[in-house]
Amino acid sequence: MTQLLNFQSIIMTLQNFWAEQGCMIWQPYYSQVGAGTMNPATALRVLGPEPWNVAYVEPSIRPDDGRYGENPNRMQMHYQFQVILKPDPGNPQEIYLKSLEALGIDPRQHDIRFVEDNWESPALGAWGLGWEVWLDGQEITQFTYFQQAGGVALDPVSVELTYGLERIAIALQGVGSFRDIQWSPALTDGDVNLQAEQEHSKYYFEIADVERLRQMYDLFEAEANACLAQGLVLPAHDYILKCSHTFNVLDTRGAVGVTERQALFGRMRELSRRVAEAYLEQRQRLEYPFIKETGRERPAFEKNIAPIQQESTSVQTSLGNGPQPFLCEIGVEELPVGDLQAALGYLRGRLPVLLDELRLEHGAVEISGTPRRLVMFVSDLAPLQADLEQVIKGPPAERAFDASGQPTQAGLGFARSKGLAMSDLQVREIDGGRYVTAVVRQVGRPALQVLTEVLPGLIASIKFDKIMRWNSSNVAFSRPIRWLLALIGEGQASEVVSFEYAGLQSGRITRGLRFIEPAEFPVSGPQEYFNRLAGQGILLYDIQRREAVLEQVTRLAGEVQGVIPDDPDLLAEVANLVETPAGLRGSFSATHLSLPREVLISVMKKYQRYFPVQPEGGQADGLLPYFIAVANKPLPAEGAPLGAEVVIDGNQHVIRARFADANFFVREDICRPLADYLPRLAHLTFQAKLGSMLDKARRIRALVHDLAPQFELNDQELADAHRAAELCKADLATYMVVEMTSLQGTMGRYYALNSGEREAVANAIYEHYLPRFTGDQLPRSKPGLAVGLADRLDSLSGLFAAGLAPSGNKDPFAQRRTALGLVASLIGWELNFDLSAALQAAASHLPLQASPESQASVRTFIAERLRNVLLEQGFHYDLVDAVLVAQSGNPAGAARAVRQLSNWVERSDWNTILPAYARCVRITRELEQRFPVEEAGFIEKEERALYEALLTAEAQPRSPGSVDDFFNVFLPLIPPINRFFDSVLVMSEDLRLRQNRLGLLQRIAALASGAADMAYLEGF
Amino acid sequence: MTQLLNFQSIIMTLQNFWAEQGCMIWQPYYSQVGAGTMNPATALRVLGPEPWNVAYVEPSIRPDDGRYGENPNRMQMHYQFQVILKPDPGNPQEIYLKSLEALGIDPRQHDIRFVEDNWESPALGAWGLGWEVWLDGQEITQFTYFQQAGGVALDPVSVELTYGLERIAIALQGVGSFRDIQWSPALTDGDVNLQAEQEHSKYYFEIADVERLRQMYDLFEAEANACLAQGLVLPAHDYILKCSHTFNVLDTRGAVGVTERQALFGRMRELSRRVAEAYLEQRQRLEYPFIKETGRERPAFEKNIAPIQQESTSVQTSLGNGPQPFLCEIGVEELPVGDLQAALGYLRGRLPVLLDELRLEHGAVEISGTPRRLVMFVSDLAPLQADLEQVIKGPPAERAFDASGQPTQAGLGFARSKGLAMSDLQVREIDGGRYVTAVVRQVGRPALQVLTEVLPGLIASIKFDKIMRWNSSNVAFSRPIRWLLALIGEGQASEVVSFEYAGLQSGRITRGLRFIEPAEFPVSGPQEYFNRLAGQGILLYDIQRREAVLEQVTRLAGEVQGVIPDDPDLLAEVANLVETPAGLRGSFSATHLSLPREVLISVMKKYQRYFPVQPEGGQADGLLPYFIAVANKPLPAEGAPLGAEVVIDGNQHVIRARFADANFFVREDICRPLADYLPRLAHLTFQAKLGSMLDKARRIRALVHDLAPQFELNDQELADAHRAAELCKADLATYMVVEMTSLQGTMGRYYALNSGEREAVANAIYEHYLPRFTGDQLPRSKPGLAVGLADRLDSLSGLFAAGLAPSGNKDPFAQRRTALGLVASLIGWELNFDLSAALQAAASHLPLQASPESQASVRTFIAERLRNVLLEQGFHYDLVDAVLVAQSGNPAGAARAVRQLSNWVERSDWNTILPAYARCVRITRELEQRFPVEEAGFIEKEERALYEALLTAEAQPRSPGSVDDFFNVFLPLIPPINRFFDSVLVMSEDLRLRQNRLGLLQRIAALASGAADMAYLEGF
Repeated sequence: MTQLLNFQSIIMTLQNFWAEQGCMIWQPYYSQVGAGTMNPATALRVLGPEPWNVAYVEPSIRPDDGRYGENPNRMQMHYQFQVILKPDPGNPQEIYLKSLEALGIDPRQHDIRFVEDNWESPALGAWGLGWEVWLDGQEITQFTYFQQAGGVALDPVSVELTYGLERIAIALQGVGSFRDIQWSPALTDGDVNLQAEQEHSKYYFEIADVERLRQMYDLFEAEANACLAQGLVLPAHDYILKCSHTFNVLDTRGAVGVTERQALFGRMRELSRRVAEAYLEQRQRLEYPFIKETGRERPAFEKNIAPIQQESTSVQTSLGNGPQPFLCEIGVEELPVGDLQAALGYLRGRLPVLLDELRLEHGAVEISGTPRRLVMFVSDLAPLQADLEQVIKGPPAERAFDASGQPTQAGLGFARSKGLAMSDLQVREIDGGRYVTAVVRQVGRPALQVLTEVLPGLIASIKFDKIMRWNSSNVAFSRPIRWLLALIGEGQASEVVSFEYAGLQSGRITRGLRFIEPAEFPVSGPQEYFNRLAGQGILLYDIQRREAVLEQVTRLAGEVQGVIPDDPDLLAEVANLVETPAGLRGSFSATHLSLPREVLISVMKKYQRYFPVQPEGGQADGLLPYFIAVANKPLPAEGAPLGAEVVIDGNQHVIRARFADANFFVREDICRPLADYLPRLAHLTFQAKLGSMLDKARRIRALVHDLAPQFELNDQELADAHRAAELCKADLATYMVVEMTSLQGTMGRYYALNSGEREAVANAIYEHYLPRFTGDQLPRSKPGLAVGLADRLDSLSGLFAAGLAPSGNKDPFAQRRTALGLVASLIGWELNFDLSAALQAAASHLPLQASPESQASVRTFIAERLRNVLLEQGFHYDLVDAVLVAQSGNPAGAARAVRQLSNWVERSDWNTILPAYARCVRITRELEQRFPVEEAGFIEKEERALYEALLTAEAQPRSPGSVDDFFNVFLPLIPPINRFFDSVLVMSEDLRLRQNRLGLLQRIAALASGAADMAYLEGF
Repeated sequence: MTQLLNFQSIIMTLQNFWAEQGCMIWQPYYSQVGAGTMNPATALRVLGPEPWNVAYVEPSIRPDDGRYGENPNRMQMHYQFQVILKPDPGNPQEIYLKSLEALGIDPRQHDIRFVEDNWESPALGAWGLGWEVWLDGQEITQFTYFQQAGGVALDPVSVELTYGLERIAIALQGVGSFRDIQWSPALTDGDVNLQAEQEHSKYYFEIADVERLRQMYDLFEAEANACLAQGLVLPAHDYILKCSHTFNVLDTRGAVGVTERQALFGRMRELSRRVAEAYLEQRQRLEYPFIKETGRERPAFEKNIAPIQQESTSVQTSLGNGPQPFLCEIGVEELPVGDLQAALGYLRGRLPVLLDELRLEHGAVEISGTPRRLVMFVSDLAPLQADLEQVIKGPPAERAFDASGQPTQAGLGFARSKGLAMSDLQVREIDGGRYVTAVVRQVGRPALQVLTEVLPGLIASIKFDKIMRWNSSNVAFSRPIRWLLALIGEGQASEVVSFEYAGLQSGRITRGLRFIEPAEFPVSGPQEYFNRLAGQGILLYDIQRREAVLEQVTRLAGEVQGVIPDDPDLLAEVANLVETPAGLRGSFSATHLSLPREVLISVMKKYQRYFPVQPEGGQADGLLPYFIAVANKPLPAEGAPLGAEVVIDGNQHVIRARFADANFFVREDICRPLADYLPRLAHLTFQAKLGSMLDKARRIRALVHDLAPQFELNDQELADAHRAAELCKADLATYMVVEMTSLQGTMGRYYALNSGEREAVANAIYEHYLPRFTGDQLPRSKPGLAVGLADRLDSLSGLFAAGLAPSGNKDPFAQRRTALGLVASLIGWELNFDLSAALQAAASHLPLQASPESQASVRTFIAERLRNVLLEQGFHYDLVDAVLVAQSGNPAGAARAVRQLSNWVERSDWNTILPAYARCVRITRELEQRFPVEEAGFIEKEERALYEALLTAEAQPRSPGSVDDFFNVFLPLIPPINRFFDSVLVMSEDLRLRQNRLGLLQRIAALASGAADMAYLEGF
């Protein structure tokens, strides 16, 4: 048993550990930073080609994590221990895990997991891919392959480890809260830091003066610019840090709106980019001194963990002549769930095709995998490719042989080029001509050789949404590849398929479950491979794991008379987070059940991937005070003790802290009615030129009022919509929403009900955010619809007027989504709407002048979204364009019209309808003048008949924009039209006759006005 | 041999060392701080009664120490290692020295010294007494007994240790510059920090925007106030730190003038005070939790160093009957030079008197001492006090005995009260009466007993300028007392004089030279004491040490054909810095000799207490590239190797860095002519309401112009004074003066000459600061005088007009010194001056309105200073007051008049002169009307004669204000005055006669007008 370490000993132990690993030990930065990453020892040193290995403590200040010292592990200041390894030493996960052992954490006693967590700092223009490391459900470390900083791609990539020291101490010391962590033999963390938590929380949430902080921000930014103008990298970086901290405080005060946030991030990112570029220039000018420095002493990484010894090259030996099994394992660091699924899907499709292309006969192809491995298994693979016979066409026979039948130069040349004698050529008839041909037979090569050549390409062809690089091979993958196993055959006769990829040499060595010794071992062939992994409890197939998880969680829930709500996404995700799923049931205090159900479930699922537990047969609204977690541990043998108490304890601690946090927020929030949050919206900038969120809410209310007739609201609905408009943004100022933005609207509804608002008002607050994404539900009530539309109209007209229209693929204010929501709502509700007038009304409330050009741009922008929506619904572009040119300003009408038009086009008599109309249009569409029709001017009966039919048609009642109505009144015109054109010369030399007839046709063409322009239709 | 530690190992070693000592290991603060003291782990935790032991690294940011990375050990950022021990563990020096050994520093190989250095932070309202710890001349640690923080006296006192980590690393690794310090096995300090030094230096000195920083300062201050209004201690403290750093940057930009500095310090101090008070309240409210915490585990200090074992109480045993030697040693931590001298002087005077008061006969009294001990030795001390016989007077004899000679009740009562029988009483004649008397004999008590009682009081009666407390005894002394030795007698028969003081028990244990084992040892008596100390090379008498130092430095200088400039102050100081002086000669590069001599000498003396070396017989202006340092090490035996190379090396490194620093400043400064610094004065605020130093210089120039006639300047002098006025403040913007303010004027002269200014101008720039203190030299040139007077007139009239007159004993702008300088200059130059007009002229140039009241206040303030000057010159107050009431507006005249008046008063015929004049004054002084004299109105010859004598007197030419001239014309009037009063009735009943006679006397009284008002004289 290692003695329990106190907090300061944890730090000193890590310092010693990493110093021994060759890291320089550095100190915390002299500025308030949100993370150790912002210390120039990371933010700048990761840039450029120079090696850099460093470790340091960093007190990290995150104002909005302040909890007045009341949360067990959430504080406005926590201590990080930051490590940078540049370049990747090849085994950073293993070194990291050894550091946990140095701290006395026995990994065999715990559930240690690498859970996807990608990291991005919009302010620093930095991102990386990696994981949260979970210790019994608790995030104790952020592990990132740092890909970009200051907007600059990193080469080489740095490994960044960020230990959360309090979390580790809580786990090591088995205490319930940061307050109880033993810091030194005499004092606890609470003794020395509690007061700071209380006071700084109060300062950040209640006291900090928004106006003064804004001024500070501007001053800091101006100084950063002044420094950059002089090429001063570090002073500029310091001021960016000050900007960033000031921003964080403003944000905690709830004073930064969505759009302002983007603007400030953009400004900081731009500064960071300039700093990064200046730093890189500087290092280049200095000729990269650290590249020389490393000569002094090599980092000690290699010393600790022996590299994998692979067979260097495969020697062609006696594989059996018959079919052999083939196994290839790509050993990786933990793949994200989505990437694992994507890779498995791709390989399942690709590998059989590839083998066919390679003319390798084979039996079953089985693709399996876990977060740590992708496995391809092929049974009965032919040892050799099938032979290939190809006929190659040469010159025409008459040119290959002369009249005497002797080969010409051309003939001889062709034979020579194929390595054949003239006698080997054959004359064949091809496409009606006669040609000399060569038949070339390609003998099948051994599978071993062919696979050696194609496997690198196969691996490289796996595509992921987000890719990363990690070593000098510059190969990109979802996560680093750490070993490659490729074997043909079984047992003594098996052979390594030898190739190199991503800096690795393939071989027969694999790795089992983490922490089971030996960490690495060779296998003789597929049989041993599958046996040994199964022996460790690894379930290679995702379906196996899903079933195992479902069985376990169902059983564990059943033991407490509960059931698991059906949630296939969560099940699939959890099953792909582990190699050996082991369900564990934890509990939490029933007092937390008073929190809104959405909050509890959000917290359990989003943060912890826990299954919530409902009462058996009870109402679906209830929850039991349990959760089911799924650890990555082999299940104990039947009857053996679970030995998982420590893991359950850890998980319970985590969820307790999470719920305490939510509880803190909700409790604080309901201290006052929702309406009382409105004044705070005045500090929450929507966008600099467009004022605060309070201003926005007021505009929404005014717009609801203006547009009430369009929304077709009755009196009660209008009253509810007015109230909902007033309150719709109020929850943005509540703690719970500041913390979990995804609960906006949800909390608004909850708090509104809590404040005694009408249910319709509460629902409208929730619904005005709908739809949140394509395919999301729409508002169910008229007031919700009205507020949501008004909100979106205001955003779009305002942002365009402020010169912030999206450009290229930049859409920082998510205006595409806004416009799509607008369109989807109108279509869904089939609400006829005059967008142009509505936008005009919206513009009238703006604090700035919306130019006619900007208004036109918004209309075009919405029309483009509408077009995309309709296209994605499967309508052909010609129908869509025909309708939109006529009624893009009314999405519901347009959608209806396209639907109708699409039906007409499908009609069997369409080829009689369209031509009849088209004849009327084609002959008149170039005319600039509109001719009056005089009944007296008709001289032929056909034209008179047509005119009468037209008058009848025009007299029919029609819905504006209705394509059906148009065609229904048009159908009777078809015979008279056809007769007209058969009998009457429109382009009479008599001007009066001509103009009268053209006028008649113009009137017919105009029947479709406002519905569609049929000229856009194919076949017009 | 300990392996050389790299920088990070030094830190980790200190962390481990102090953790083992029971200190909590803390982290650097997240804010730019000038010192670890500002970390709340010190600044706040030292307050209040709770124990607190902590250690941490602190990167300390001092913008004005930035040297662009060019100085070997001066940087804008250096690393401190800070330790707080609260309460004092009793042996902090010893623990500290052990920490140096843990770092591999063998104290026997080096010269380790505790050199007085008191610490004060005006911004934090904090101060403490202690030392710089020198390692071979290099300051490596600041060691402070922290007495006050945030304006609050500390109880208990904290011990504060601040290691300078780069200095230690430079010494340990034997490198020449911070750039070469090995930080980790792979990297140097230069590798990781040089760029930061270059960039931040440039930022702080050249780029930082003064206007923006001022705005930041105000914003930070406002936030601090907002926090305090809510009782938030730590957030308020954070903003004070930001104020402080911002102030430091402004200061480095040269943007803070003397008066503005005071104002800003005052504001920060006030904030600090409020923070301290709020913190104390908070801890009290929390019921001082750390007082309970300590119960958990006692700090480990005691474990390491065994406490001194003293004989607990002295048992009265057989001291010989004859006279015995007496020895008392007060063992202290290193006393400051001034305190050592003061204590020795006091004891030399006090001890013999005390022994006499105690009726203890004694031989020679010898007082000696070193920085670590005060020693009292008395030879042949009587073992017993002399007996005392007292005669006590009782009732008169006739009341003590009745007529029959029998004792009365009164007689019996008296006898009983003295414990005597009636027969023991004697009747004696006292003061002409007969009384019964009792003769009481007091038998002398043993010296041992008497001394036990008085020694504590004797020690307590030693007074020091600055005193400190260190432990719970709350005794105050110059530095902590750590042991007490007090013995009577020699050898076997010696006895401890047993008493307790300052938490210590006296005994027979002493300590020798540091680092010689055993650290503590008992002595049998004075003889062994003196022998053993002498055997270690300790010279107990300061005169011995002075002689030894002088001999050594003279010899060492002579070896390089040099001599030491006569400097008794330096000699006395150096001799009192050591117990065992050992002179060492170091050298420096001759290139530094191009620096101004004043700079070189200032640097050597002020910072290092080195003796500079002049060439033998050469011009006094020259210097040789050597210095003599005096270490505290026993000289090696004759012929043995000095073994001091490492000490010399260390000292040479220090002076090299110091000169490099001065060189850096001067080189930068002379890049441009002095006049080019003027624009920078615009950023240097003199005082907020009074504008910049540039404004001030312009006012001085204008005032010189206005007052040129009063200054009696000729044309060339006026031109020079104008130019000097323009330039007089320019050197304040130079690096050298910003660094060493004491060189203001000196550098101005140097740079002016360097810029091609006239020598008279350069001299005037230097001289305008004269006199800098009472007794300092005066300006030698008229232009220097004129500029100096104008400067002072501007300061006084301006500051008073701005409402900043000194009040009580607060004089932050040193206006007393300013006024004294003004007065001294005028008197010294005997320049008649119209202060009132001059102040009026000064006021006319101010940027604000000077009210008549403020102008009157200035005049009064100057007059008070003038009065004090004259009183201190020994003139009797009546003479001074008589003159000042007449001519306080002309100090030179007033001084002359007082001198003259003092001579007249000494004259033997003074008693005829004053009464004659007084008669004329007394009879007229109550009159409110002034009567005209009409010659025709005189009817008596005596009054006519007096009138004629008056006319003659009035016709004599006289200097304004001259007392001599007054008396000389008055003397002939005395006989006629006396005759007049004898014969003429002034107060005639005839109104016309009476008024004419009174008018005559009024004319006589008025003769003294403008010289003095004789009515103030004694005997008037």
